[in-house]
Amino acid sequence: MSEWIDYNKESLKQHKAHHWKLATQSKVELETMDDLSTYYSPWVAAPCIEIDKDPEKAYDYTRKSNSVAVVSDWSAILWLWNLWALAWLPVMEWKAILFKKFWNIDTVPIVIKTQDPDEIINIVEQISPSFWGINLEDIAAPKCFYIESKLKKRLNIPVFHDDQHWTAIVVLAGIINALKLRGWELKDQKIIISWAWAAAIAIGKLLWKAWATNIIFSDSKGIISLNRTDLNEYKKEIVSYNKDNISWTITEALVWADIFIWASKWNILKAEDIQNMNTKPIIFALANPTPEISPEEAKRWGAFIVATWRWDYPNQVNNVLVFPGIFRGALDARLSQITDKHAIIAAHTLASCVKNLTVDSILPTVLQKDIVERIAKAIIEGKE
Amino acid sequence: MSEWIDYNKESLKQHKAHHWKLATQSKVELETMDDLSTYYSPWVAAPCIEIDKDPEKAYDYTRKSNSVAVVSDWSAILWLWNLWALAWLPVMEWKAILFKKFWNIDTVPIVIKTQDPDEIINIVEQISPSFWGINLEDIAAPKCFYIESKLKKRLNIPVFHDDQHWTAIVVLAGIINALKLRGWELKDQKIIISWAWAAAIAIGKLLWKAWATNIIFSDSKGIISLNRTDLNEYKKEIVSYNKDNISWTITEALVWADIFIWASKWNILKAEDIQNMNTKPIIFALANPTPEISPEEAKRWGAFIVATWRWDYPNQVNNVLVFPGIFRGALDARLSQITDKHAIIAAHTLASCVKNLTVDSILPTVLQKDIVERIAKAIIEGKE
Repeated sequence: MSEWIDYNKESLKQHKAHHWKLATQSKVELETMDDLSTYYSPWVAAPCIEIDKDPEKAYDYTRKSNSVAVVSDWSAILWLWNLWALAWLPVMEWKAILFKKFWNIDTVPIVIKTQDPDEIINIVEQISPSFWGINLEDIAAPKCFYIESKLKKRLNIPVFHDDQHWTAIVVLAGIINALKLRGWELKDQKIIISWAWAAAIAIGKLLWKAWATNIIFSDSKGIISLNRTDLNEYKKEIVSYNKDNISWTITEALVWADIFIWASKWNILKAEDIQNMNTKPIIFALANPTPEISPEEAKRWGAFIVATWRWDYPNQVNNVLVFPGIFRGALDARLSQITDKHAIIAAHTLASCVKNLTVDSILPTVLQKDIVERIAKAIIEGKE
Repeated sequence: MSEWIDYNKESLKQHKAHHWKLATQSKVELETMDDLSTYYSPWVAAPCIEIDKDPEKAYDYTRKSNSVAVVSDWSAILWLWNLWALAWLPVMEWKAILFKKFWNIDTVPIVIKTQDPDEIINIVEQISPSFWGINLEDIAAPKCFYIESKLKKRLNIPVFHDDQHWTAIVVLAGIINALKLRGWELKDQKIIISWAWAAAIAIGKLLWKAWATNIIFSDSKGIISLNRTDLNEYKKEIVSYNKDNISWTITEALVWADIFIWASKWNILKAEDIQNMNTKPIIFALANPTPEISPEEAKRWGAFIVATWRWDYPNQVNNVLVFPGIFRGALDARLSQITDKHAIIAAHTLASCVKNLTVDSILPTVLQKDIVERIAKAIIEGKE
């Protein structure tokens, strides 16, 4: 606990020292009156007129070709709920810095006051002309699904919900490598995903697209099966992944499982239940900042591989591993959508970036230099 | 005309070469896993929680203290009307670059698709938490007055309509210096402002606040007087400046005038009418890019001083002369409003920046280095 207090203090100190950390930068010289008149009034009118004739020209004459808006309604902010909009700004600024650092994309952080889905859709659409892509961030389920799908239909630029898709891709990459070590295939795995919120549903969907055949979800009412009468449309979509319509308790279901993706901080089972799982179980414990179970304890109860969000344990699941490369590749290829195919390509490429595959390195660290470039290249080529 | 074509070509060439001209920049090092965890997940939560407890802390922990949104609905874009939203992006990007270059403010250009005033107000309010100030740009009159006044009431950060206020301040500074050369005082001047659109009305209002006592406006129906029955609420406000309720034609009115602010490109009078004005008339010809009358011609007909938007004539009226200094000062003093008092302070300070006052240098050039600092200082001190 004292370690936590120190980290918090250090974070506050650093944020205060660097509160202008995200700056804008002019990449042109403006030294003479001629520069000013060529670039600004009156001759800036020339590119305006060209873009008016052909909107595609915006990619030639403005930074639209390299510009992403990170937009949040701060409704699903990791373990901190109910903060006020402004309070979420540090996170958005850091996301913009990561976009810049890891793949040189110019990003604008925008925190929206309202949490009403239709208002959010309208605002994002209204401000969209300036940007090449929209990265939705920290928007709660189930409205995140509704907002993302509506915006994808309305806008002709890529729209991506960070918390769902980036996390799902990293988890898939980790599972690909974990299964290599165990010598089994994804299609034969029995998977439990605990808690059907945005990232968890996205993980399940991506695993399904990547040929998983047997996935059960749990939520606050227990395992999601056809026996349930309280499912919303998003849970109805994933209930079919529960192919044997299992409706046990989560503790009973664990006996059946090979892979357990623990994406809820609630104490839904005991650590020792892990010992009842199938041989060499794989655990993703994704609560942040404190995993549902520590890797040490999970291993004590028989876990073969454990991955968490934590930077100070092995196998860190970190969105930064994928979003720079995918966005860089998509920008350079000028994709109008980022699809499941791209997500699977990115996951396989990320998995292949691990140089020395062991149970403690199923994912590369975020500081490994070649990841962005390799993922970007794979996205551009459309190949794994 | 061939000169124009060359400028247009050069502008396109430069815009293409520098289309990533407005970049984001990280001012911190992110080299180790510890950096990442301190700044980003999980310890970024520390400043979020502090800001949630006290929103003022956002000025300590985020770039809110240095961040301005430039927002346009592209409804009043100089001499180019009816371009599509996206086509206005080059202008917005340049404004952001000028904000950076001339006073180191981090600015986000946002073009809004809708031109509906209430929708614009809602969108700006919704995205406002991320910013310290809002610079409205190129929004048509009369809705610009409505939008600005509503936003000023709703937001607790400065809101400024670029086209109205910045131009007005520069014109006032120019008139202050012109009157020094002529040896007369503003309160004794008879002023005509041709065309009652956003900037023109703002110029009139600011001159009035700075002690002008006799200002008549004209619009497409002629001089604005109490005899008119077609005045909107904004024109009703300025009709009182016409203290003798003059309702001549504009040509007749010119015979009465000392100062003529020509802010309409329409041919409402003939160049030779200038010879009928009072002794040593002062002309501001503010159409862009081609002034209503060239300085050479105006002088041929007896003009004492002529100012235009053009960078290649003497006495350039350029908003860049004031907006960096005012915003810089207002940011540093953390003002929640920029008022008429600040505008008048800035105009007097700008006027005093001219080192060698002549009829061809009533305003400093935008490249003069000390302007921003002097205006910022005057704003912070609250003194002229």
